[in-house]
Amino acid sequence: MNRNDTTARVAHVFRGTFVHSTPRAAVGILQNCVLGIAFIEKDQDVVSLSKLWGEYINQYELYIFYIFFMPGMVDTHIHASQYSYTGTALDLPLLEWLNTYTFPVEAKYKDLEFANNVYTKVVRRTVKNGPTTACYFATIHTDASLLLGELADKFGQRALVGKVCMDSNSAVPQYKESPSECKEETDQLCKYENKNILSDCFAPSCSSSLLSELGEIANKNKFHIQSRISENEEEVELVKTLFPSCKSYTDVYLMHNLLTDRTVMAHGCHLTDEELEIFRETGSAISHCPNSNISVCSGMLNVRNVLNHRVKLCLGTDVAGGYSPSMLDAMRRTLDTSKTLTIQDPQHKTLSFEEVFRLATLGGSEALSLDDQIGNFVVGKDFDALRVNVCVPDGPIDLFPGEGPKIPVLSKFLIYLRVVPVPDT
Amino acid sequence: MNRNDTTARVAHVFRGTFVHSTPRAAVGILQNCVLGIAFIEKDQDVVSLSKLWGEYINQYELYIFYIFFMPGMVDTHIHASQYSYTGTALDLPLLEWLNTYTFPVEAKYKDLEFANNVYTKVVRRTVKNGPTTACYFATIHTDASLLLGELADKFGQRALVGKVCMDSNSAVPQYKESPSECKEETDQLCKYENKNILSDCFAPSCSSSLLSELGEIANKNKFHIQSRISENEEEVELVKTLFPSCKSYTDVYLMHNLLTDRTVMAHGCHLTDEELEIFRETGSAISHCPNSNISVCSGMLNVRNVLNHRVKLCLGTDVAGGYSPSMLDAMRRTLDTSKTLTIQDPQHKTLSFEEVFRLATLGGSEALSLDDQIGNFVVGKDFDALRVNVCVPDGPIDLFPGEGPKIPVLSKFLIYLRVVPVPDT
Ligand SMILES: [Zn+2]
Ligand SMILES: [Zn+2]
Repeated sequence: MNRNDTTARVAHVFRGTFVHSTPRAAVGILQNCVLGIAFIEKDQDVVSLSKLWGEYINQYELYIFYIFFMPGMVDTHIHASQYSYTGTALDLPLLEWLNTYTFPVEAKYKDLEFANNVYTKVVRRTVKNGPTTACYFATIHTDASLLLGELADKFGQRALVGKVCMDSNSAVPQYKESPSECKEETDQLCKYENKNILSDCFAPSCSSSLLSELGEIANKNKFHIQSRISENEEEVELVKTLFPSCKSYTDVYLMHNLLTDRTVMAHGCHLTDEELEIFRETGSAISHCPNSNISVCSGMLNVRNVLNHRVKLCLGTDVAGGYSPSMLDAMRRTLDTSKTLTIQDPQHKTLSFEEVFRLATLGGSEALSLDDQIGNFVVGKDFDALRVNVCVPDGPIDLFPGEGPKIPVLSKFLIYLRVVPVPDT
Repeated sequence: MNRNDTTARVAHVFRGTFVHSTPRAAVGILQNCVLGIAFIEKDQDVVSLSKLWGEYINQYELYIFYIFFMPGMVDTHIHASQYSYTGTALDLPLLEWLNTYTFPVEAKYKDLEFANNVYTKVVRRTVKNGPTTACYFATIHTDASLLLGELADKFGQRALVGKVCMDSNSAVPQYKESPSECKEETDQLCKYENKNILSDCFAPSCSSSLLSELGEIANKNKFHIQSRISENEEEVELVKTLFPSCKSYTDVYLMHNLLTDRTVMAHGCHLTDEELEIFRETGSAISHCPNSNISVCSGMLNVRNVLNHRVKLCLGTDVAGGYSPSMLDAMRRTLDTSKTLTIQDPQHKTLSFEEVFRLATLGGSEALSLDDQIGNFVVGKDFDALRVNVCVPDGPIDLFPGEGPKIPVLSKFLIYLRVVPVPDT
């Protein structure tokens, strides 16, 4: 059955208030909306929006609705393998941090029991926190990476899972692989279609020949690609030294065919306008990870400037460089960084919380080239949604209906709340 | 019975791990500690630490203890009257924000039923979030302010409650008072000893003659004083215009005898080194409110510089300029602002989370001149403590004992957690 076949039999109907983003409106609110859902691939439980009707209202009227639906959030950059030390070990700059905390722990994922324990917890936790889609970094171990994908399936989370590729510059001898090992393992991953992404072909950790191989594999298989770029200044200098023939950090990835419209690069704090133009031309996306950027003192991405360059932009928690596995935290920290830039330069146009809402939902789906399936409520897409109730008993919010200035529930939720945990599955 | 009489009969004993700050150590951890408590004023249920023994351990050993005691946190700046619109209405600069959102709502507290509803919720919420002591701004209404103090008593929170004093520059005609009304009402408050604090003798909202009267009342009655200073640049300019004969913003308060060792001034983002010296000399404290400072784009306080000037420093949530009524949030935002200053100037010495822990506990008690009663675990002080359990079932944290790098539970708690809500009283 075709995904866009809106004549499909409607199997479920939801009625309520739906909040989402469209390319035109950062926040659109449909009240009294009826949304019909048809099963299109019954065996795999994939459902598709088949009908949607309702009337758009002004967002400031939303304060009368305590329960609403919103698109699932998309965490576009999270290191599943670093989850065990979230909220600790934030006392070193990036490159030292990798060698001291990250690589020694990641080496342990050779042990599948160890991997199973941590990966189960990270998937359960992120599902609780709102992301219905996550783009995970795993480790160099193929088996453990596949396990992570299976766990995400089990807990009902859409996941892109990437085996990390690295052959250079690790201070931990047991945590790197030879270029041929890496190619072989990555080829093995190709057997598992759809869920896979090439991870962390990180310029400071890969030789030029490995980067070329990876670019080839990715383009041949139409793989997604994820890595990081221009997180901090020391790293930018290091890459200049490692790749003296490249014009810029962005040029390193461009030269190795790793910038495609299925590429998402984390951070980008120190990208120049010229580099942003290359991102726009190639359709590559930037994953903004503000909690991590502040926590490890990397820098501040000027999101407004990136949007002005029409580069695809999305948000990531970057656990464990970021200390919170919550996308609500990622949204709040995005606002904080934008406001800090306004403090520094009053001419800077601060992001609105509506714009940030779009980055966390539709923006994420676009960055991962999944916007034909998820990101907002459009007929033909999957029904990928969160049902938010801001007034559960003993919940973390106090509401004062009819008192004070208009109280946009959406703002209270995004700015102030955690997602209320759902019962364990 | 004397507070320091350690021979008092020990009525309760707690055994466990105690984490607190001392003037010498930002974080000291006593393991296997036995703490004896004696009732010293039985009718009022005040208890005092009478014995304390145990052995200090390295903080990185704390990871084996999932339950520990810490001193109650002190929120030194929170507007109880603004709680209803927490997490909304953050779209205007300070002075417009006051006239558009704050003053119209505060005018409603003439109605005691309205006041009772909001004040009950704010006290319940803050108690849940960890502060055992709060320094509240109320409104200009004496009755409602007294009600807030009673509610804090009822819910077991130590509170300083201040009636706001203002006679000038409100764009909301029904929300100001004449100088004589203000003096009369404030005199009335003097009847209620101990719980009171003169609130918001805010230079832009008070005439010079009112400020003088308030300075006199405060000094005669040994009242605490709270207000705000140098929050943003526009306000600093305004105060220059309103008080042309004063050398600086700090000088305005100094000239009106409002800087004492019982004074706590919020913000101070734009104070000069000369002004900080006046704070040190008078023993006045600064309440750092980082969430608010970023949320309304006021500025960033350089806490390290304030500490170097040996000025008393504490933390505040500044609800509703700050969107979170949690002191854990205040601690995290303090780290964020400090890290942002490091990003701007790598020479800046970032605050450690241990230092921030001290600001939220011992620092708050010192700023409110309550450090003879609360702030840490010292024989003779009240037993004013939180019992923290970081591994409640279905709690907001995942722990991985024995895995990965040492996991300091304290860091996970402070950096990453909410206080787990306690059942309603
Ligand atoms: Zn990362
Ligand atoms: Zn305030």
